[in-house]
This record gives sequence, C-alpha cells and structure tokens, in this order.
Amino acid sequence: MSGFFVPHNIEAPIAGAPEGPLAGLTCAVKDMYDIAGSRTGGGSPAWIAAQTPATKHAALVQRLLDAGAGIIGKTICDEFFYSVSGANAHYGTPPNLRAPGRLPGGSSSGSAAAVAAGMVPIAVGSQTAGSVIRPAGYCGVAGFKPTFASIPTVGMKTFAWSLDTVGLFAAGVADVAFAAEALTGRRLRVDGTTPAAPRIGVLRRPPWPEAGEDMLTALELAARSAAAAGAAVADVELPEICADAFKAHGTIQDFESYRALAYEYDHFRDRLGHNLRTALEGAKVVTPEAYDSAQRTARRAREAVTTLMADIDVIITPSAPGAAPEGIASTGSSVFNRLWTLIGAPCVNVPGIANDDGLPLGIQVVGRLGRDHEALLAALFLERAIAST
Amino acid sequence: MSGFFVPHNIEAPIAGAPEGPLAGLTCAVKDMYDIAGSRTGGGSPAWIAAQTPATKHAALVQRLLDAGAGIIGKTICDEFFYSVSGANAHYGTPPNLRAPGRLPGGSSSGSAAAVAAGMVPIAVGSQTAGSVIRPAGYCGVAGFKPTFASIPTVGMKTFAWSLDTVGLFAAGVADVAFAAEALTGRRLRVDGTTPAAPRIGVLRRPPWPEAGEDMLTALELAARSAAAAGAAVADVELPEICADAFKAHGTIQDFESYRALAYEYDHFRDRLGHNLRTALEGAKVVTPEAYDSAQRTARRAREAVTTLMADIDVIITPSAPGAAPEGIASTGSSVFNRLWTLIGAPCVNVPGIANDDGLPLGIQVVGRLGRDHEALLAALFLERAIAST
Repeated sequence: MSGFFVPHNIEAPIAGAPEGPLAGLTCAVKDMYDIAGSRTGGGSPAWIAAQTPATKHAALVQRLLDAGAGIIGKTICDEFFYSVSGANAHYGTPPNLRAPGRLPGGSSSGSAAAVAAGMVPIAVGSQTAGSVIRPAGYCGVAGFKPTFASIPTVGMKTFAWSLDTVGLFAAGVADVAFAAEALTGRRLRVDGTTPAAPRIGVLRRPPWPEAGEDMLTALELAARSAAAAGAAVADVELPEICADAFKAHGTIQDFESYRALAYEYDHFRDRLGHNLRTALEGAKVVTPEAYDSAQRTARRAREAVTTLMADIDVIITPSAPGAAPEGIASTGSSVFNRLWTLIGAPCVNVPGIANDDGLPLGIQVVGRLGRDHEALLAALFLERAIAST
Repeated sequence: MSGFFVPHNIEAPIAGAPEGPLAGLTCAVKDMYDIAGSRTGGGSPAWIAAQTPATKHAALVQRLLDAGAGIIGKTICDEFFYSVSGANAHYGTPPNLRAPGRLPGGSSSGSAAAVAAGMVPIAVGSQTAGSVIRPAGYCGVAGFKPTFASIPTVGMKTFAWSLDTVGLFAAGVADVAFAAEALTGRRLRVDGTTPAAPRIGVLRRPPWPEAGEDMLTALELAARSAAAAGAAVADVELPEICADAFKAHGTIQDFESYRALAYEYDHFRDRLGHNLRTALEGAKVVTPEAYDSAQRTARRAREAVTTLMADIDVIITPSAPGAAPEGIASTGSSVFNRLWTLIGAPCVNVPGIANDDGLPLGIQVVGRLGRDHEALLAALFLERAIAST
C-alpha cells in the first residue's frame, strides 16, 4: 500500500480563483493531467524521470481553477492507465478505506481512494475501459463518466483517444453533479431537486461474464427500491451487436494505446512493469483493418443502444462483478463498463449498497448519449430510493 | 515573406529507420507536432519562448521515422493555427513559388509551400477548417485530409479537438497516397493502378458563397474531363441541414479552441497577434448549449451526406473560391472545406488546372466517410483526366 499521491507531486497546493462555484473546495487530479510547473508521470517512475514540468495546465485543470477549486495533489494511478496488474508496479496502490485490505480498483485508484478517505471532496480520474465507475463502485463513492468528449482532454496524457473520457469522483451523486456543472458550464446539478421517477431498464443478462451472487442481490435490491419509489422498472436485453462491440473495445484500446505509447514503448520498454510491457507487446499486432472494423462495430452498437433506449431513461447494471477483489493481484474487471465507454454513454456509479461483509457494491446507471443531466437525475433518484429501503 | 521553417527549428535533421517505405525521403512537419528534443511553438514566438523541448515524438512523427522518413524541419504556420490574418503576424509567411507574390494559404502554409518549392517530397499539415485542402489548392500540389481520427493526433498541439485532422502534402495524388499508406498501414496506395471510372457528383451550387469565375470554369473543366474519361458525372445538391452544419462548424471551432487555448489566452494574451486575440475574445461567448446543439447538427449532416452519397463515390467542388488571393491581408477562405472537415469525410486536393494567369486552381474530391482509398483512386482518375484534356 502507498499514500494517495504520486511521489513526484506538485510542490505546493495551487489556489483557485477567489470566487466561483467550487471556491473553498480542494480537489485532486489523476497523474495524467498536466499542471503547469509540475511533471506528468502517468504512474511511471521511468517516464517521470524523463519529463520536464508542463508549460500549461490541462484544459480541465484550468477550468477547475477558474471555477474556484484549489488543487492539492496528483493521485496515483495504474502505470500508463493500463489496469493489467494489481497495485501500481512501482508506487503501490492507495488504501481503500471503505474496503480495508482491498485495492480501490484502477486505473484512477488514487482519485477514488482519496474521495473515499475524505481527503478531498472532488477528484478527477479518467475512464478508457472502466477506470472511473469500477473504482467508484469498489470505494463506495459516486463516480461520473460523462458523455464522450463532453469534457476536453487537452493536456491529458493519451491512452486511447477514442475512448479516454474525463471522469469525476465525489461522495454522492449530487456532489459529483455539482462538480460537473461547475466544470462544464452545462446544466447538470441535481441538488435541491426531487427527481421525477425515471423509466429504468434492468440489464440482468449482459453478454459478458455474470456478476457474483452478492452483486446480483444488490442489483435486485436497487431495482426493487427504484420500483417502490415509483420508477417504471422493466427488464432490458442488449442487441446482439453489443457482444461484438464488447470485443471491439479491446481491439480499439490495443490499437490506439500502442500508437499513443509508441515512444514510451521504444525508449522505456525495459523500465515498464512486466504486465504493461506484455500488454503492449500484445497490442502491437492489431491491424488497421481490424481496428477500422471494430470502429464500425462500435458505431452500429451506438445506434442499436440508442434505439433500445428510445423509451427508457437509463439502464442499470452492476458497476463491477462484485466488491473490490481480495489481495493485490488485480484492480478488478472492467467487463461491466467497456461497452458504455465504447459507445460514449454517460455512466454514474451509485453508492449505498454493501454486501454482508460491509464492502461497497456499486450500481451503474447508464444514460442516453448526451443526456447526462437525465442520467444524473435518475442516479440521484436511485441513490435516494436505496437509502430509504 | 519568410523562409519555410520556423526560427526555433529542430537542431539537426532527424534520420528515419534505415528501411521502410519512406526510406531515403525527407519530410517536414507543421510547427504543431511534437518532436522529442525540440520545442513546439504553434507559430507563436511568445509561446515558444515559454516552452521546454518535447519529451516524446508525436505519434505521427514516430510513425514517419519508423517508416524510414527523415525529418528536416518544422514549417511555419498561422499563429495557433487560426487563419484569421494573412502572413503569420510574427514570422511572415513562406513564398508560394507556384503563385509568385501571393501567399500559400493557411494555416499549414509552410508545409504546402515547401512541397510546392520542391524542398521536400512530403510534408505534414493539419486541417481544422480548410488548412490542408486550401493551401494545397493555392500551391498547386496534392493535399490529403483523411477521414477524421484515422491518423492519431497524440502529440499534436490542439486547436479544436473534434475537428483537428492530420493532413499530408505531396506533388501529386499518387505521392500523397503512398505517404498515407506508409503512415497508417492501411491500403491507400494508388500508384501502379488504373483506377476504375468513379461515379462523381458535381456540387455546382453549394449553400455558401460562390466561387469566382475562373474557379467555376475550372470545375466545369474537371467535370468534363472526368466524363470524357468515362466517369459517370451528375449534379448533386446538398441536403438543407448542410447550411446549418456550415454554421455549426464555426460554433464548434470557437467553443473548443477557446478551451484548448485557455492557458495561452490567460497568460500570453498581450503577446498574441491582434487578429488572433480578437478571434479568441469572440470565441469566449459560445455557450455549452450552443456547442452541444452544433454537435447534434453535425451528426445529422453526417448522416444526411452519407445518405446522399449512397450511389456516388465522390463529390467534386472547388478547393477554395479561386486562386491564392492577392496581397498579404488574407490566407484565403475555407468556406469550401468546413463542412467536410466537420463531418469528417476524406478530401483530396487535385492539382493540375491553372487560370489564365497561370495560378493554380485546386479541385476538391470529397469521399465517403472511411472510404479513403476510393477517394484517392477517384482523385487519381480525375488528375489523369485533367492532364490528358
């Protein structure tokens, strides 16, 4: 285990603008975003040693500061954002205070864990497969992955450009929505409202490995709570193309990450963690034809899910197969997240359920593309319904 | 007038891999792409002065070197890629040897001009509005803007992330296709082939200001030559949504560029050229709602153009309103390019026609999304048809 922040942290906290919606709040950002004057390491000691301080803030950092937030540090993440091993091979991984002895998940481990520990009210991560929703689920905090490309990635170290999505962590749904509105200028806040009862599709049989028993129980509890609170709840099944799209995600991530990290792979190969090096070696073989075909599959899946969701507001599914896994061998599986990242849909991790051992079990609310406010409203509705069950 | 390369150039030519499809060829890249050990200036002296050398190559630079190309320099471009004035306000603009006394167009001015001058066989630029196809047209060289996101932008200084597209310049269509295949690994070469006669839609009445007399004559010549060579040529009219999409382009570019350049605007405002500063001040007012609406319009236009092109291979239109404009007040208009950049369609500038004064007039071949090889084949067909007329 390690602390929450990377060893090559910023030298001193950075003050935000004196006024703004986030004035007085502090936040932490994943070691993926440039902060002027500080080096961006991407979770790699070899890489950070070769860097010079960034000469500008990432667009997101600039917005945080303009909105009044102070930045107190850069959080530990999986090496180059690849969740292929457990603890960060070099730095270790921050403790998950909500699930003692277990990892917080990855790759945005430090950001999720810092919020769960109450160190910061807001933290920024990123999701390329499941790196926001999964750790939020494991840590029992709210996580929000907005519609793809709705928050700029300028100044963010690239992992896979057609998947990388800025994501946020906060204690609850209303908090994360508040931060998202402050960051984007879009109407996303849900505090002070009583959300209308949403139409919810429950995805009980996804075309990928099933959740554990405790997670299935949690999903039933979530569905039952929502129905009891007045939501229209019905089963939903994914169109067939989604099984192909699930595989397409891996093809796209491999093709893009190998190119995004080509220089690192060429010049720092011997100093990368074993699992990351192996993953990049595997990624090398994806052909442009396979990639282009995967992108076409992704487009078809996007259309099919849009059609599927014409008459429902959100889909609910597990955020992860279960609670944070035991031991330090793995940061857990992103199987429940990849499809939604691929099609770009907004996702919210709703906290509030625990298994018999008291470990958090996250429920994922998936909204319609571009309908982030509706997704957050439905997530708040569900969060309240669960709390009152 | 200036030279072709930025004053803060690379220190020495960089050798490519000893073998590869581009071995023995030299190329130049726009001052927008990172080259490890060199500073990226984006055409701004104030910005370059604050930079440190890049610590990795842009993905595209890495690919060029891996494919065997040597890199001899970074080319001058419009300040921060904004074609809002004529010559670069600080460095001046390279000479257009094909149109003496006139500018080469922008923003990829140095790259287009260097190829036109025969200094390099291949140069890399970028297009966010019309910054590849327009200068290629003005300089009488081939320009290729591939399908959006088909060449990685990792390590490229961002202007507007949903529009920025890597583009290439070379002497003729076969040359630019050869370079594109070497760069991407996709089957894009057209040399050594006799392209089948394409189905061509001629866009005579676009929903934006019309071309000059000489350009209209050039378009007729292109259509007539293609028909004489066996192509099926018919008039085509754009769906109504395209007029809105044309305006949406400006909204999207403004919204994104203001955010991508927020740090520069905050910290270097007084040292930006007057026109760029004014443009960014104007860009500041675009709301997220206007932006999101513009993105929805773009998606609808993309679908409408895809439907329109179901039975044709390419559309031909002017690459610019006419020949390179006189004087140094303007790098010319991108009105004929913005829609295609917005929807992400592949575009090729076909050289070979000149007006009565001997100035190049470029014809733009617009292909179907993701059908870049077909677009290049049709462009080669047209280039040969024009040459044999």
